[in-house]
Order: sequence, then C-alpha cells, then structure tokens
Amino acid sequence: MSTEFLKVARAAREAGAELAPLPRAPKDRALRAIADALVAHAVEIVEANAEDVERARAQGTSEAMVDRLRLDEARIGGIAEAVREVADLPDPVGEVVRGSTLPNGLELRQLRVPLGVIGIIYEGRPNVTVDAAALCLKSGNAVLLRGSSSAYSSNTALVKIMQGALEATEVPAGAVQLVPGQTRDSVKELMRARGLVDVLIPRGGASLISSVVEESTVPVIETGVGNCHVYVDAEADLDVAVQIVVNAKAQRPSVCNAAETFLVHEQVADAFVPKVLEALREAGVTVHGDARVAGYGSGVVPATEDDFYAEYLSLDIAAAVVGSLEEAVAHIRRYGSGHTDAIVTRSQRAARRFVALVDSAAVAVNASTRFTDGGEFGFGAEIGISTQKLHARGPMGLPELTSTKWIYTGEGHLRTSEGTVVAG
Amino acid sequence: MSTEFLKVARAAREAGAELAPLPRAPKDRALRAIADALVAHAVEIVEANAEDVERARAQGTSEAMVDRLRLDEARIGGIAEAVREVADLPDPVGEVVRGSTLPNGLELRQLRVPLGVIGIIYEGRPNVTVDAAALCLKSGNAVLLRGSSSAYSSNTALVKIMQGALEATEVPAGAVQLVPGQTRDSVKELMRARGLVDVLIPRGGASLISSVVEESTVPVIETGVGNCHVYVDAEADLDVAVQIVVNAKAQRPSVCNAAETFLVHEQVADAFVPKVLEALREAGVTVHGDARVAGYGSGVVPATEDDFYAEYLSLDIAAAVVGSLEEAVAHIRRYGSGHTDAIVTRSQRAARRFVALVDSAAVAVNASTRFTDGGEFGFGAEIGISTQKLHARGPMGLPELTSTKWIYTGEGHLRTSEGTVVAG
Repeated sequence: MSTEFLKVARAAREAGAELAPLPRAPKDRALRAIADALVAHAVEIVEANAEDVERARAQGTSEAMVDRLRLDEARIGGIAEAVREVADLPDPVGEVVRGSTLPNGLELRQLRVPLGVIGIIYEGRPNVTVDAAALCLKSGNAVLLRGSSSAYSSNTALVKIMQGALEATEVPAGAVQLVPGQTRDSVKELMRARGLVDVLIPRGGASLISSVVEESTVPVIETGVGNCHVYVDAEADLDVAVQIVVNAKAQRPSVCNAAETFLVHEQVADAFVPKVLEALREAGVTVHGDARVAGYGSGVVPATEDDFYAEYLSLDIAAAVVGSLEEAVAHIRRYGSGHTDAIVTRSQRAARRFVALVDSAAVAVNASTRFTDGGEFGFGAEIGISTQKLHARGPMGLPELTSTKWIYTGEGHLRTSEGTVVAG
Repeated sequence: MSTEFLKVARAAREAGAELAPLPRAPKDRALRAIADALVAHAVEIVEANAEDVERARAQGTSEAMVDRLRLDEARIGGIAEAVREVADLPDPVGEVVRGSTLPNGLELRQLRVPLGVIGIIYEGRPNVTVDAAALCLKSGNAVLLRGSSSAYSSNTALVKIMQGALEATEVPAGAVQLVPGQTRDSVKELMRARGLVDVLIPRGGASLISSVVEESTVPVIETGVGNCHVYVDAEADLDVAVQIVVNAKAQRPSVCNAAETFLVHEQVADAFVPKVLEALREAGVTVHGDARVAGYGSGVVPATEDDFYAEYLSLDIAAAVVGSLEEAVAHIRRYGSGHTDAIVTRSQRAARRFVALVDSAAVAVNASTRFTDGGEFGFGAEIGISTQKLHARGPMGLPELTSTKWIYTGEGHLRTSEGTVVAG
C-alpha cells in the first residue's frame, strides 16, 4: 500500500475511534458547521468545479453528463441544506436494540455502535461527497471517499472545506478523508485495506459494483443494481396495472428502482398488452417483447435473453407473457437483481404467494417499484439501496451504517460447571 | 467448479427456495424427524464413526483429539436432544422487524426471511454437522456442510440419515448437503460459489478463518477467534478481580471466550499482582508477564509481543501493568480480536468509559468473559460467535441466520414529481 493511502486510512481510523463515543449534540454541531462552511466557501467550490467542467468538456463529455458534474451557488445551497437535514435526523448510535436481565442477574444490553471506518466508492455527481460524509459522521463513522476522477477538483475542495469546518468542532477533522490519487490503484488500495476499513460501499454502475465485490477483502455492501419487474396477475385491475407499469418505467428511467421488465399472465394478455403497449408508446418507451408480446403490436422489438437481464436505465422495457404466477416468480428469480419486484392483483391469495416466493429486497403489491427509496420509506436520507442479504437489505438509512455491541454487567459473576456464582 | 460440487450446490439452492416460505410447524416436524432418525440409526452412525476413529489412531492422532471425534449412543442421544431443543425455539422467519403506514397510505413492513443457502466450514467434532444443519433448517435456510476430513465417514452417515428423515417431511431432503470431497479444493469451491451460496460461516481456528476471509467471494461471517482481556481498574474490588481473572482463564481454557491477557492499573498492581499470581499458580496457569508483572513473582515467564497477540486456548495467560484505563483500552485495541473484554471496577465512571471506548463484540463489567455465549445470553443455541461488525456481532442465534425483506402494499400507488397519486 502506498504511503499516501496508509496515511489517510490511519488518520481516518484514529479519528473514527475518537468520533465513535461522541453523543448526538457535538455531531450535529459539526454537521451544521459543515453546512455553513459550504455556503461560505461557495465561490471556492464553484472555481474548483469549473476545472472539472472544463476538463470534461475538453474530453468531449456529453452536456447531460457535464450538467450532472456542475455545481453553482444554488446547488451548493441545496447540498448544505441536505447536511442540515441529516443533522435533524435521530442518532442511531446508543440505541438499545435488545436487552434483558438474565436469570443469573447479569444485565444484558445490545447497543448500536458505529461501524468504524466506511469506504465509499462512487461515480458521478460531487454532491455524493458531502451527502455520504454527512451520513457517516452522523452515525459516528469516519469516511474514506473515493469519487470519480472526473470530479476530483470539486471533491478535493469539498473535503478540504469539510475538514476545515470540523477543526473548530469536537469531531476530529480526520474523520473525513479523500482517498489520494485518481487512478484505479487507489480503488484497489481501498479494497485491500482490511483491518483499516470496516466496510466498503460501492455506489455506481453494475461493473463497478461487481469488480469491487470480486476483488475486495474488506466486507462490501452491494448497492443499486436494479432489474425490477412488474407482474400483472390474472386477477389484476388492468387500468391500474397499465398506470403502474408506465409509472415504474417512465417516471424516472435512470434510477435503480425503475422497472426494466413487465410480465403478464396469459389469461389477461389479450386485454392488457394492447393497452399497455399504447400507453408505453405515448410515454416514449420502446418495448422489447417475447414472441407473444410482439404479436400484439407492430412497434415491439423482439427480446433476446440479454434484454431480460438488462438494467436499461432508459426508456426501454422488456416484456413477456407467462403461464402462471409461479412462472413469473421463476422469471424474476432467474433474471432479476433482487432489488424490487411488484405484483398487480386484486387477489389476496396471489399477493400473499408472490410476496412469499419473490426473494428480493423489496416486494410491492399494487404499487409502483419507484417507492423503494430511503426518502419514501421515511428514513430521511439514504446512503444507497442494498441488494445483498447480509447486514442491510433495501434502502440503507443511518441505522444500516451501524453495528452493535453487547454489554453485560454483573457484580463479580463467574461461570462454573454448576452455573453462575457471584464472587465477593 | 466441479460437476459434483455444482450438483450439490444447485440442489441446495432449489431446496432452499422451497424451504424458505414454509411456516414453523413443518420445519419443527422435520427437525423432530431428524432427531428420531439419528437415534434409530445410532448403530450405523457408530459404525461409520469407527472408521474415522480407526483412521485417526492410525495417523497417530492424540487420544484427546480421538475422543473429540468419537460418537457413541449416549453422544448421539445428546445430539438428537439438541435438535429437539432447536425445534422448540421460536421461528425467526416472518417476524415483523419494523412496520408503519406511510403518509401516502402505503403499508410498509420489514419481515425476517431466510438468507437462502448457508455454507459452513468447520473442524473437529461431528456433532457440528447436525447442530449447524438444525439451526439452518429452523431458520429456513438450506445448508452446505464442509466438515473436517478426519470426520468424513461420520459426517457422510449423519447427512445421509438427515436427508432420509427429511424424505417423509415437507422440508426438501436437498436442503442438507455435504460438500463432496475431502481436499482443500472443495473448500475453495465453496468460497468461490457466489450466487449459489449466500453466506459462508467458517468455524475453527484462526488460520482457517483468515484464509476463508482472504479468499472467499461469498460474503463471510468471521467467528470465534477470541483474544479476550480482563482489565483490573484502579478502583476494582481486588478479591473479585482475582476470581474473575481465574474464572475467565481457567474455567474452560480451550474456548474462544476464555481470557488470554489480564491488564492491571499500576495503582493497584502492588496489591493485586501477587494475589492473582498465586491464584493462577494454584489453578495451574502459566503467566507470561511484562517486566513489571515479572517483578512480582518468580514463576512469571517474560512476555514477548507475540504473547499479547496470542489466543493460547491453554492454561497460559499474558499480563501487563498499565498506567491508566486509556492505556488498557489502547492495548486491547492493538492486540485484541474484538471478541470480549472485561473491566473489574467499583467506579461507575470507569465502567462507563471502558464500555464506550472498547470496540469489541462484547464488553463485560464485573463479570467473567466466559458469559459471551448464545446459551448464556438466552438464545437457546448458537452457530458461532461473530467477531466482525457487519450483519452479526457476538453470539449468533437463529435471527442472525436471517435477512429481511421489505413489503409495501398499496392500491395503485404511483410516484410522481408532485407526490403520490393513486391510480384507479
């Protein structure tokens, strides 16, 4: 590992140990200091950001992507406001998760504690630098940030300003660190930093996430890949089903909880498919359908196996007719990413069965897949949406950024082969 | 991956999907059928076990190790009884962990669900084969067992009998699988089976666990390495402290919650160390002390750096004098394994500080480290003790063998930029 990396990782580790036992008030004061500093240094941030924007333009980046990168005073104000909202959220640390007095008199409590040092690897917009740092600090964790090299100047400025703001607070400035370097090597170092970093959260496209999962020795929480399905049951209200499919696909196609496939029970295909094809066409969506779906409309592109695996993140949707709810479930198990899958049905039995059989982070009944979201779930903010089963599943709020610790208190309790004896 | 491995892994995966939605009653019936079958086939098990015992003796295995391997009718009866006790435990699956009605009317619930397929890599006694299978089945998971090659005949017989018992139940027989082959290759296959296996739990020595952590692409829960400390504070009741140190070390030295180091505040070292050295000598314990501890008694072996890192699992203990509680915490952070660390003190302030600063799965106050145990905590049974921070920390009972799933139910709920709209 490079000296530069070890330096920041160790600084984060030390800062994390100092930050972990802090109660809520000093953490909230630190977050408000960060928000104020971002606003106060907006000009500096915009200047640094201009370098990233200029470099992106010189490299021929699309204007849509350049816009995602761009920061102005209004956007910086929005980022600062989001930090203040995190300060307003309850502190998960110290929550007693379980507790009892054991038969032998030991008082047992399981407390929420910070994880320690969280590594975040992310692409895209520089606001993630601040959002992720705020969520980590609030939950008592130090954070090692490794953003996109396209936003390196912005990220460097943002981290410097956050560290400067922390100087005057009880939260150690070292708790927020930017991983030095812009090459793949710095990502590798983060992935091999077992013992220095407690968990790694990759946020970004499927290829980033799968390479981190494959190579990391640090425990990883997978986020964000969403190949979401809407299954229209034989007993669906078809008008509702059309609106749910269109909403799940088209309301915001670029996000992970957007639908990528709809499946329809053959008993209602005749009535449903022509309607949904028309509605999707109106919404500007291209349908990639199996042979039976294609039979209902001229504009349907024939679907390949790859279409059913695809996370389009665009105005495209795959579609298939299935013979039964069980066949829909089998399709979802085979092609899905375990993010969110929805059923539209009036049948209580079908809903119950779909919910029991679909093994995904979220299952929606008569609702759009778009509701799988920390904000919608009432978490206030989210660090990502986990599609793995270990530790956290679905939208991850502040409690998902914690671990627990068992405390037991006695008065000289000893364990013997005949049971507990109290010394003294 | 070998065809044999893929065959059992896929069988486990399919069986797991069938097992996961089963309610408690059929799972408990299946566990009782297993318990009955083990008793009914005791002779067969003893015969298979005799092959392992004979092979072990021929290889010059110590009689103590041979005894750990040996099964007789009484031990088989005990294993069957443990399976019945698992059947009596509450089912974690289906528990509503959180739930609310969102402001837009969506009913949101977070339910406990099985993880899917759990891989267990273990050494030692063949009873783990049955214990682990019972805990996995009860929590709705299929299990891939990879035991010690020294117990291969016993494990093969036990798994065959369990599968046979399941044939007559609603739990698919494929839910319990022995990983074929006795070489390291079969361990490797299990570690690379991402997508087929949801979590890997290595149970055994430090080298097994660290190699699994290093090589596995399947998420791992680390268990069992315990370098536990007892810190005797300046304000400790010294008689209680002596008894806690002796109990934590000597009551059962071979287990992970036994103490491996004691630390004593310099203000009470004069009064405490001679007493504890005498008590430890009487208990047959060798003390590996730093220079200051060595100054108090002739029988103290000089401690090296390695002694402070050691998980002796024997009648040996490392010892050091520290200048403050903070120095004790720093020692524990540096050398400890994050399992269990205890403080002995009459000071509320010192206890509070130690609990806040020590970053371990369990922190004991005025109690022996030996209480960190699923049975003692009231879990009924445990699959191991996690020393990692993600997913599970400390003793792992049935809930730790589950994940969760979010369910949300609406009546045509759509997400729009102006908020929720209900279709219909």
